[in-house]
Amino acid sequence: MGNIKNTGEKGVAKVRAHRKKKISVKELTSKILAGEKSALARAITLVESKAEEDQKKANQLIENCLAVPNNSIRIGITGVPGVGKSTFIEALGKTILAAKKKVAILAVDPSSSISKGSILGDKTRMQELVKESNVFIRPSPSGDSLGGVARKTRESIILCEAAGYNCILIETVGVGQSEIAVHSMVDFFLLLKLAGAGDELQGMKRGIMEMADAIVINKAEGDNLKRALKAEVEFERALQLYPPKENGWLPKVSTCSALDQTGIEEVWVMFLEYFKLVHENGFWSTNREKQNQYWFRQTVDDLLKQHFYLSPSIKEELAQYMSRVSQNKISPFRAAEELLAYYKQELK
Amino acid sequence: MGNIKNTGEKGVAKVRAHRKKKISVKELTSKILAGEKSALARAITLVESKAEEDQKKANQLIENCLAVPNNSIRIGITGVPGVGKSTFIEALGKTILAAKKKVAILAVDPSSSISKGSILGDKTRMQELVKESNVFIRPSPSGDSLGGVARKTRESIILCEAAGYNCILIETVGVGQSEIAVHSMVDFFLLLKLAGAGDELQGMKRGIMEMADAIVINKAEGDNLKRALKAEVEFERALQLYPPKENGWLPKVSTCSALDQTGIEEVWVMFLEYFKLVHENGFWSTNREKQNQYWFRQTVDDLLKQHFYLSPSIKEELAQYMSRVSQNKISPFRAAEELLAYYKQELK
Repeated sequence: MGNIKNTGEKGVAKVRAHRKKKISVKELTSKILAGEKSALARAITLVESKAEEDQKKANQLIENCLAVPNNSIRIGITGVPGVGKSTFIEALGKTILAAKKKVAILAVDPSSSISKGSILGDKTRMQELVKESNVFIRPSPSGDSLGGVARKTRESIILCEAAGYNCILIETVGVGQSEIAVHSMVDFFLLLKLAGAGDELQGMKRGIMEMADAIVINKAEGDNLKRALKAEVEFERALQLYPPKENGWLPKVSTCSALDQTGIEEVWVMFLEYFKLVHENGFWSTNREKQNQYWFRQTVDDLLKQHFYLSPSIKEELAQYMSRVSQNKISPFRAAEELLAYYKQELK
Repeated sequence: MGNIKNTGEKGVAKVRAHRKKKISVKELTSKILAGEKSALARAITLVESKAEEDQKKANQLIENCLAVPNNSIRIGITGVPGVGKSTFIEALGKTILAAKKKVAILAVDPSSSISKGSILGDKTRMQELVKESNVFIRPSPSGDSLGGVARKTRESIILCEAAGYNCILIETVGVGQSEIAVHSMVDFFLLLKLAGAGDELQGMKRGIMEMADAIVINKAEGDNLKRALKAEVEFERALQLYPPKENGWLPKVSTCSALDQTGIEEVWVMFLEYFKLVHENGFWSTNREKQNQYWFRQTVDDLLKQHFYLSPSIKEELAQYMSRVSQNKISPFRAAEELLAYYKQELK
């Protein structure tokens, strides 16, 4: 029996592998459009795969799904480790489900491939949401670069939306440039904070506060409530220092307790207000178009630089010029001109 | 007599043109090193010239001057029009002269070539400084791009330093990216402000405050004094929101009246404190090296992009992809890959 069971497991794996190979892009597309969660998961696996054949399929899938009109809500959520992102998303997710939305939860965490301490990696942290049929949770794709992770996540959004998930929550953690990447793929950017010892604003990463459409101070509960309310006032004052946003929205500050489920409903109401505003003033659609253009230009620039900087002969020349530039032996401008002249010569 | 005078003027111009042509790079270099102001002015004209022959000479000159070790002080000064930059620089310049320094005043104003309303364009705004033998004033170079203007200014710094000017003040106005350019060529970045009606911080350009090593509130005089002192407190509080700077310096806020010459000496003392710190902690030299590397990398990237984006066939392809990307007909990433594949094909 034990023997049978063992081969049985292998057998199932074989059947599964077989089945996975057989499905066509067309079939997978229609299963996604029908909202089949397993088809969606499989499609994202294709997007994340490095195999050339998978990438071709993924490209075709994305193209099919791009054609599906959608009116989704894309929310970026950031905050340092320990701020309670998982608990917050669990509480927020339940509120959104109650509003009859389908929720997809994705993550951008370029560090996950190295540290394996991925956000969302441990799905059990969202014990209740994970059981819901209208919820789809996917941990951060692994990838050697932020660019790679960002691309995979951005294409996963398209797939989730095609599968009928009309509220996409994208979690990220305050490392490197990941916030900028997430900010450039969402409609609304939420910064989750904790009330500290009066120095909430100190040591905050440059630019993050400028990107935030809302700052929500979590763990406003028990002994911490007073400090949270004090922090709220400080953040409100700090936000006033920034110039008005292009979206016509005045960034909001609020407090919540994800643990006690207080202040969460208010966050959802704020989202609704925001989306009403940006649909009315046209920012929503122009912003999405701009984001598409941004990722196109960004990727073109990245690939162009890769092509240049990864060329072995350029690398060698560059290092030599860099050393002369550092030692004040040549003007940086002239060095750059000479290097480019070399590149053009090499290309011929 | 009138007749003779007329031809005489032309004759002088001819002689001057003749003399200008005859001087060699070697001769010009030694005149610069001897501190001759007219040679310095002429060298900067070469740097600013678009003629190929002049550029070659300029490159050689820069290379000669780069070899001269210097221990100069490079200060960037920014502020919106009307803040009193010229009066401030006039007052500050006199203080620096009194400290036995030679002062060169340059400007980065990419708008000057269009609007002709150049900062420093009207030298008479610094009526007293312009008469001083130890002062060299040069208006912003004209140039179609910020990159061009920045390069010319940066190379002019090298020439001024070789000519013995050991304090370089670089003025810029809050337009476009010029602050970032100036910040990347100076040791110390000073933001000049006015006390307004309590909303000093509102509407401030993103990132400028983060770059400032000091905020000096000008026109702290008469009726305005109270407001200036209030603004000082507000800016001090606002600066605390930012993370510590790499240079180990805590940005300072002070008030001054350039008109009444109060608070100017204090600015000079602050510079001395700053330079003492950054020489001691090593930031000064590593920063200069980093700035060289920055301009090298920046220029390489710019030239690389120019080579790509200015190619007519790329332009055409790019426009087509951009339109498909905007209409959600192709994923931005795939579009970028296809465009790069086309570029590599074209290059062969």
